[in-house]
Amino acid sequence: MTQIVNLKQIKEICRKIDFAPLIEEGFAAYSDGRVVVPPVGEMSFSAPPGDTHIKYGYIKDDDSFVVKIASGFYDNPKRGLPSNSGLMLVFSQHTGLLQTVLLDEGYLTDVRTAVAGRIAAKYLASSELEAIGILGTGIQARLQVLQLRTLTRCRQLVAWGRSEKSLEAYRDALEQEGFSVVTTTEAEELTAVCNLIVTATPSAIPLLFADQIRPGTHITAVGSDTPLKQELDPDILAKADLVVADSIPQCLERGEIAKAIGAGTLNRDQVVELGKIVSGRVQGRTAKDQITVADLTGVAVQDIQIAKAVCAGLENED
Amino acid sequence: MTQIVNLKQIKEICRKIDFAPLIEEGFAAYSDGRVVVPPVGEMSFSAPPGDTHIKYGYIKDDDSFVVKIASGFYDNPKRGLPSNSGLMLVFSQHTGLLQTVLLDEGYLTDVRTAVAGRIAAKYLASSELEAIGILGTGIQARLQVLQLRTLTRCRQLVAWGRSEKSLEAYRDALEQEGFSVVTTTEAEELTAVCNLIVTATPSAIPLLFADQIRPGTHITAVGSDTPLKQELDPDILAKADLVVADSIPQCLERGEIAKAIGAGTLNRDQVVELGKIVSGRVQGRTAKDQITVADLTGVAVQDIQIAKAVCAGLENED
Repeated sequence: MTQIVNLKQIKEICRKIDFAPLIEEGFAAYSDGRVVVPPVGEMSFSAPPGDTHIKYGYIKDDDSFVVKIASGFYDNPKRGLPSNSGLMLVFSQHTGLLQTVLLDEGYLTDVRTAVAGRIAAKYLASSELEAIGILGTGIQARLQVLQLRTLTRCRQLVAWGRSEKSLEAYRDALEQEGFSVVTTTEAEELTAVCNLIVTATPSAIPLLFADQIRPGTHITAVGSDTPLKQELDPDILAKADLVVADSIPQCLERGEIAKAIGAGTLNRDQVVELGKIVSGRVQGRTAKDQITVADLTGVAVQDIQIAKAVCAGLENED
Repeated sequence: MTQIVNLKQIKEICRKIDFAPLIEEGFAAYSDGRVVVPPVGEMSFSAPPGDTHIKYGYIKDDDSFVVKIASGFYDNPKRGLPSNSGLMLVFSQHTGLLQTVLLDEGYLTDVRTAVAGRIAAKYLASSELEAIGILGTGIQARLQVLQLRTLTRCRQLVAWGRSEKSLEAYRDALEQEGFSVVTTTEAEELTAVCNLIVTATPSAIPLLFADQIRPGTHITAVGSDTPLKQELDPDILAKADLVVADSIPQCLERGEIAKAIGAGTLNRDQVVELGKIVSGRVQGRTAKDQITVADLTGVAVQDIQIAKAVCAGLENED
């Protein structure tokens, strides 16, 4: 019997589960070649503009496989609807039967992306955080910081954005979560004090530049998930002591790493995969003064793992 | 609000709707270049053996797009489960939002395949049917004949199969539906009297040969939907006056047409697409003595159209 789970139920489960261990396991399995991830399915629409992605795959010898369908329709806010939507489907790897429909409306993608940011920070950021810098004021900029709360005691936050109004709303929201928030429209004010920086914007032009980045800084770039988007000047990746990709094949096609390789400031041999660090095969940060960059474009194994974790959470409730 | 529809509800709706006009429209739109059908997504599993296909697409300027996920896990019957399963998802082309989850467990794929067989027979078979020949005794062999019932008054059926037991069960089922059924394990007995033949088996070797096919015969081949499967000797397609594909690009890769082109008995320029015939751009059967062959490998536009029709049927019920 197929179980149908709505967003409210999913959010309740999410409050009770820490997805990080299972998603770390997923990254390790992925970098170990134990995850089957076929090419992403894509559809584009022009009037109104939108796109739909189908990501799917499975861990070998696991019990489930997962199909995620996620859409972004950019005129939706004009109609009072969210841009992003979608669902995840969990099937049995033993029978092919559909087990669970997670009507998450894109929420689990937001959460698994934020959890990946925390995993990157865990292995790459300094253990002594001065302040956390966040570029962007959207849902991902909020979730990233909330995830980091479980990793560090640092509650100093510098938020960068283009709109004063959005920055104010962001500050109010995060202050309610126990952070001390400074807002700015000048990136230098952020880079001057933050040694963990998360970029979570839909920018198509660099927002941070190499001369702004101080020794000891870690940057997690999560906004650039398409070939057109970009948040970091390619020279930052050239300057970095360690450049980490969630998926090397994917980061060669999209995201900051693709841009830097295209610009000739980075060689693909210099890129390390996050799962190799998680599993201990490659070291993360080894010195306080290192500059590190993690480019997270989003991998299907994150979807696989979070969907499985929600299903397991539901079973425990029964 | 997403609507969830279970198999029982879907079967009720299916009893009330004739899908043929909408699926004809779909074939015409497809051959007219008005359907976006990205490459099929595929996953294979080895222990137990199974495969999953994701077919998706949309008609341009339509209201919906559809994603279908269909699995075949061949050890399922040992566990008392059906081999085939799956679901269809209907989304808005205006917002990307998920509108309807059709938990059809593969049933709508069976129905749309049978409807396509009827459409092929409508344009290609003789208007004077002597007897209908069916190769295979499974669900598709049943549904094909039930669909043909609305097209012709012919109730003479010759059923070919390998197992006497399956043939008996098939005969009992179709006699209940008003057919007079002769069963045989010799294909010649079928080709000698039937001028409309439908092959609906999972065979990987030819079951029918060119010297058996009488002038005036139409053959619809629906069983061969993968590169390995084959039901017709390639010489049949060489002998045919008209060879029709549901999708030319797909039939170049799989099915009878791919086999015949590979064997050198057919040239791709000789193949006509079903939608061109449906829309009247190319003629179907033009003479009583012609031999015609339709190779149906299954096109996403059939899924799109049947899913939409079920949704429309649900709305009319409300």
